[in-house]
Amino acid sequence: MFKVPDHQVGGHMAGNGVLGPLVDDAGNFYKPLQSDERGAKEVAFYTGLSTETRIPDEIRKFFPVFHGTRDLEASDGSGLHPHLVLEDIVSSRTNPSILDIKIGASTWYPEASEQYITKCLKKDRDGTSLTLGFRLCGLQFYGNKETGFWKPDRKSVNAFTHDDVRSALWKFVSSNSPSDSDAEPDCSYASTVYGGPDGIVSQLLKLKSWFEDQTIYHFYSCSIMMVYDKESILKGENPNPQIKLVDFAHVVEGKGIIDHNFLGGLCSLIKFLKDVLNNPKK
Amino acid sequence: MFKVPDHQVGGHMAGNGVLGPLVDDAGNFYKPLQSDERGAKEVAFYTGLSTETRIPDEIRKFFPVFHGTRDLEASDGSGLHPHLVLEDIVSSRTNPSILDIKIGASTWYPEASEQYITKCLKKDRDGTSLTLGFRLCGLQFYGNKETGFWKPDRKSVNAFTHDDVRSALWKFVSSNSPSDSDAEPDCSYASTVYGGPDGIVSQLLKLKSWFEDQTIYHFYSCSIMMVYDKESILKGENPNPQIKLVDFAHVVEGKGIIDHNFLGGLCSLIKFLKDVLNNPKK
Repeated sequence: MFKVPDHQVGGHMAGNGVLGPLVDDAGNFYKPLQSDERGAKEVAFYTGLSTETRIPDEIRKFFPVFHGTRDLEASDGSGLHPHLVLEDIVSSRTNPSILDIKIGASTWYPEASEQYITKCLKKDRDGTSLTLGFRLCGLQFYGNKETGFWKPDRKSVNAFTHDDVRSALWKFVSSNSPSDSDAEPDCSYASTVYGGPDGIVSQLLKLKSWFEDQTIYHFYSCSIMMVYDKESILKGENPNPQIKLVDFAHVVEGKGIIDHNFLGGLCSLIKFLKDVLNNPKK
Repeated sequence: MFKVPDHQVGGHMAGNGVLGPLVDDAGNFYKPLQSDERGAKEVAFYTGLSTETRIPDEIRKFFPVFHGTRDLEASDGSGLHPHLVLEDIVSSRTNPSILDIKIGASTWYPEASEQYITKCLKKDRDGTSLTLGFRLCGLQFYGNKETGFWKPDRKSVNAFTHDDVRSALWKFVSSNSPSDSDAEPDCSYASTVYGGPDGIVSQLLKLKSWFEDQTIYHFYSCSIMMVYDKESILKGENPNPQIKLVDFAHVVEGKGIIDHNFLGGLCSLIKFLKDVLNNPKK
């Protein structure tokens, strides 16, 4: 009944003694609770969100649907372990292209311990978070039937420079094979995936409007997942581009202040995507 | 011909052996070049800005007009010293109320020295920069003929908490005396100063639009000055609310990336002012 997800790009992969997420055939995603306070914080966030009346429906749809928690046999064979039961964002898709983007120049919050701040600050400075306001955390780009997916390992993605990030945002919407580093990305699908009234930029702009006003939450170390179906474009069907917010183990109360850290990074990402749209062949 | 400005709220005050800015009767503001690299960087910024064609006029007006540099007898009596010759923003006003707000959660730039970063990061965390995305650097609020100005010293302003900042943004547009800590600020002038098509929020929104797109400059440790004439309101005249960007010793190249640090702080400030407008009596 439970299996390891086909299309996971971030976090720990279940199996081989590793505790990781599982999915079922009914469209549920089971995320094991982290055993430290992060697990409890993420449950608290999802529980609070489900009764929070100040979130408009057009924003709520950017969060995975939450079905509570459930004890499951852990994927590492350690016995029963509590899992968050969430909407499975990608399993309904055949060969989804996925980008996991951690938003914000800072991934640490003011109240965190000095040790945690030092660790995060180093990562933020070593990666692109501080300069770009976001960093890539994981990705899989579908090429075609022959090449399959381009899925660089986590270490490579962590080492992405500013130029690598820009290049990945081109490749994500290009018809040529993303794993071929010689081929110039053609950005053929930019207008279909990033553009248009239902495209990713349009969705990000709705999210931006909300962040300009909402003072309920500050989302530290949270990701935006961008997903679409490249094969659908080839078949002349809707590739269904979609954004979802994920990873809420470091959400803190907004206390009447907007989340300027997330908002700044979000605006930076939007500008990168607009640049692709305005100049699709670079 | 040269004199110490009447309405300076930030930086070193000229006189008593201190090198500080001077003004003349012709509407010029003479800012002594800082002797380290900051002086040269600020000159380079103003010089570059004056020939930068990508800045629309409606944004250019938010920068002080630059008239080059000039060697003047320094206010500390140390002899000739180079000064930036700038538009004097406040001397044409009789009793201006002024707020100097340093924008951005981070006042340090990624390329700075470790020593400089450590110093700035501590200030950003001790003050409100990190939490609010901005901090107050100086202020003078006109009360009335009897009370004159409320002008807390730099040390008090540096110690402002989140609540002190919110309270200052109320007092700035209130009819009651700002120095009276018992009086509840009435926010009587909010709609006149913050609101309306020529009000401060409208000007900040124009600046925000530009920051969502411009990738020329990153403005670290730069301030927005907000100024208006309270007396004019009492006389039924236009209080002429105005914003100006000042302090460009830490501007770095944008390199194709938006200034998400400044933009995030700017959006946070706008939200604070909108809250005053939407709920003028708290």
